[in-house]
Amino acid sequence: MTHQETIVALATPAGAGAIAVIRLSGKEAITIASGLFHSIHAKELAKQKTHTVHLGHIKDGERVIDEVLATVFKNPHSYTGEDVVEFSCHGSHYIQQEIIQLCLRNGCRMASPGEFTLRAFLNGKMDLSQAEAVADLIASDSEASHQLAIQQMRGGFSNEIKRLREELLNFASLIELELDFAEEDVEFANREEFQKLISKITKVLKRLIDSFATGNVLKNGIPVAIVGEPNVGKSTLLNALLNEERAIVSDIAGTTRDAIEDEITIGGIGFRFIDTAGIRETTDTIEGLGIQRTFQKMEQAQVVIYLFDASVVRLSLSKSDDSKNDTVRQVQRDISILKQDIEKVRNQFPQKSLVVLANKVDMLSEEEINELASQIEGLHLLSAKTGQGVDALKKVLLDFVNTGALRNNETIVTNSRHYDALLRALEEIIKVQEGIDSGLSGDLLAIDIRQALYYFGEITGEITNDDLLGNIFANFCIGK
Amino acid sequence: MTHQETIVALATPAGAGAIAVIRLSGKEAITIASGLFHSIHAKELAKQKTHTVHLGHIKDGERVIDEVLATVFKNPHSYTGEDVVEFSCHGSHYIQQEIIQLCLRNGCRMASPGEFTLRAFLNGKMDLSQAEAVADLIASDSEASHQLAIQQMRGGFSNEIKRLREELLNFASLIELELDFAEEDVEFANREEFQKLISKITKVLKRLIDSFATGNVLKNGIPVAIVGEPNVGKSTLLNALLNEERAIVSDIAGTTRDAIEDEITIGGIGFRFIDTAGIRETTDTIEGLGIQRTFQKMEQAQVVIYLFDASVVRLSLSKSDDSKNDTVRQVQRDISILKQDIEKVRNQFPQKSLVVLANKVDMLSEEEINELASQIEGLHLLSAKTGQGVDALKKVLLDFVNTGALRNNETIVTNSRHYDALLRALEEIIKVQEGIDSGLSGDLLAIDIRQALYYFGEITGEITNDDLLGNIFANFCIGK
Repeated sequence: MTHQETIVALATPAGAGAIAVIRLSGKEAITIASGLFHSIHAKELAKQKTHTVHLGHIKDGERVIDEVLATVFKNPHSYTGEDVVEFSCHGSHYIQQEIIQLCLRNGCRMASPGEFTLRAFLNGKMDLSQAEAVADLIASDSEASHQLAIQQMRGGFSNEIKRLREELLNFASLIELELDFAEEDVEFANREEFQKLISKITKVLKRLIDSFATGNVLKNGIPVAIVGEPNVGKSTLLNALLNEERAIVSDIAGTTRDAIEDEITIGGIGFRFIDTAGIRETTDTIEGLGIQRTFQKMEQAQVVIYLFDASVVRLSLSKSDDSKNDTVRQVQRDISILKQDIEKVRNQFPQKSLVVLANKVDMLSEEEINELASQIEGLHLLSAKTGQGVDALKKVLLDFVNTGALRNNETIVTNSRHYDALLRALEEIIKVQEGIDSGLSGDLLAIDIRQALYYFGEITGEITNDDLLGNIFANFCIGK
Repeated sequence: MTHQETIVALATPAGAGAIAVIRLSGKEAITIASGLFHSIHAKELAKQKTHTVHLGHIKDGERVIDEVLATVFKNPHSYTGEDVVEFSCHGSHYIQQEIIQLCLRNGCRMASPGEFTLRAFLNGKMDLSQAEAVADLIASDSEASHQLAIQQMRGGFSNEIKRLREELLNFASLIELELDFAEEDVEFANREEFQKLISKITKVLKRLIDSFATGNVLKNGIPVAIVGEPNVGKSTLLNALLNEERAIVSDIAGTTRDAIEDEITIGGIGFRFIDTAGIRETTDTIEGLGIQRTFQKMEQAQVVIYLFDASVVRLSLSKSDDSKNDTVRQVQRDISILKQDIEKVRNQFPQKSLVVLANKVDMLSEEEINELASQIEGLHLLSAKTGQGVDALKKVLLDFVNTGALRNNETIVTNSRHYDALLRALEEIIKVQEGIDSGLSGDLLAIDIRQALYYFGEITGEITNDDLLGNIFANFCIGK
């Protein structure tokens, strides 16, 4: 990528709409745009002020392609820090393509994915972690993931890293200065202060590293596995959760043919419900062919919901009277078998949070409900039909999420690249600490400090390379 | 629809992209936008100049929704003629919805389809035929349909209608003035000039009405039916036409299960190829079950291509030697049966342009080709495999389209509403002519002239009603 070239791309989503925006950026952006743009009011775009909008026509020779608005941004006051022109045209696919082709024929080249943001980074308009947040922001689909991305884009995380880096850099310089005066045995760097700083950095790094567990689930949604026999009401459960939230539901193709993920936003947090339906067909215990896949899915989940149909459980009360119910329902389950099932799931995944949920409780009498609750510890009641227990379930689910940090606007790490760099930085800081403890000489301390500084720099992009940048910006959409 | 309300809508296509544009229009647009928009440089949008762009944040209370660009357009210098603000935000679905919801909570209401353009019309920014052209422009998918829409949007058609209307209105006024002086028997309206004008109007109306046949096909694509037995190479024919044009192909669900339409742009003109494949399975003549549907499809077509596989036609030359070929091909057809088939198609649809196309001619010797051509009149040769005849076929197809009017920038009517109004206007003008011929009195002439003026006014929207506007703008997308 030559940084000098002028790039062009469609900045709005593909498809037909009222308007579309085509963005040019680079040294020749205004000159190229001016050559295509004809307006009685703004003859030369180069003579127009930055951040002004002009009505005119885009022409290919004598042929009018469209009536457009051209917005001029002059460097460095643009998204990329370069000269930028945005054409707002009619949103026909044909017109979009004609204008882009016209720009290409007149000296632009097609922008690579994320190239506008890459240039913004290279031109110092934002640091690397802010640039990464732009992609996260566009992908955000819940209040939580949106808040995390916007906080990172606005520099919350970068500032914290930069502050630590500067303080550490300051000490590194002093220690290195000592080396120049090695024979005089002076200490420019106050060792007590230095110890304080290292302690502080260690603490901050640990907090940031710990925050990734939260950040990762908040960004990607909390995986919740729903287990249970077929027809216990999994889809009505999802619909009940969904109806009141009017949230985005999407079918994400599962990793196995059996599992479908539905994303539902509850209280601004995304939850990915993994339905393991269809695995257990007729067997009454968690055994058989599908068990492996069910367990794999449950491994990925943070929360497991064990859902069962309360109306078919054979209790010691009226429900145990088969003659009364067998015309209505074919399948009845003994409560002892149900309890065994639940125990098996609990023992298999002691680390997972298990929610035992009795569905269709509207079909039970109060007495029956009481008996059920007395036999199954921590039972949650639900009627997807009447809506009973839906709000309580939402609260239960939200309680699994540590939203404290989010509410307090603390920095939360969401990016695995940052997480890796923080881990490595911490390793180096621990080495520095060990060095201090063992009275290591300044020159050796300085090496570990430099290494820690390197990892800090990787996060914000002071230290970078083409491969790293290539990887990061390849995940962007074209036009950003 | 209260014209006073401030409306909001997403103006860019739905979906995720680099950026999205949300548009507000109405009396309170700038006030509402200003309340949500926070910028250190542009504290109050109302104080900013029209056509200027400002960087800032959209906040919901203290919560930052996004960093956006806000563009201010002050009435009457906007698309709608009202105060307009456009927010250019990050293209996440979540952010788009949050900003729109925020606008709705702060006094905007959701725009109806086409309501921005409706307001532009009501505020005199464009006439009705220009407004209709905006929707056509967004839907345009070929050079021809694009050119027709842009010409209409820029007022080419309206101006022609308006000129005629003004001249006619002028005469109508003079004639009506005569009525006031009826007893004095004066003629303010020069009857000779008036006759000239009526002749001119008649001529123009006839030309415009005639242009609709061309305009309609240029706008919607020229329907071409491909008939022939299965496996004669229909799909390779389409691919051959397509490859060199790199045009848009789309599968339009056909009206019957059997027929699939492919739209291919040739020389800037859209052609809709209707493949009637699968109708004739084994029979050798156009008879059998599918015949009805084939013929229905052919009824819709302007051009019919009869495609056959030249390599399996049994000629009097080498091809007639069965022993030589029967290992290679199972199906052979007698040339006399082929000729019968072609004649049947030609006789059934004497009005359609028929192109007889011999495919796979690369498998024939020159002698064989010559014999084939000598037996079938007007035969076109094609090898989808080698590309032979592809350019010639394109030329043949383009020759069916009257592109002269398009090339000469003549006004072409593409809208059936306009066509209907022109037909009615012509009826009235013919009545006026008959009135002149029979020496009809001025007061009676004036009635027919007024009626003709009414239909002219319907086209450009001087005369309109809510139903008509509702019908027209319901076909727009939301946000335009």
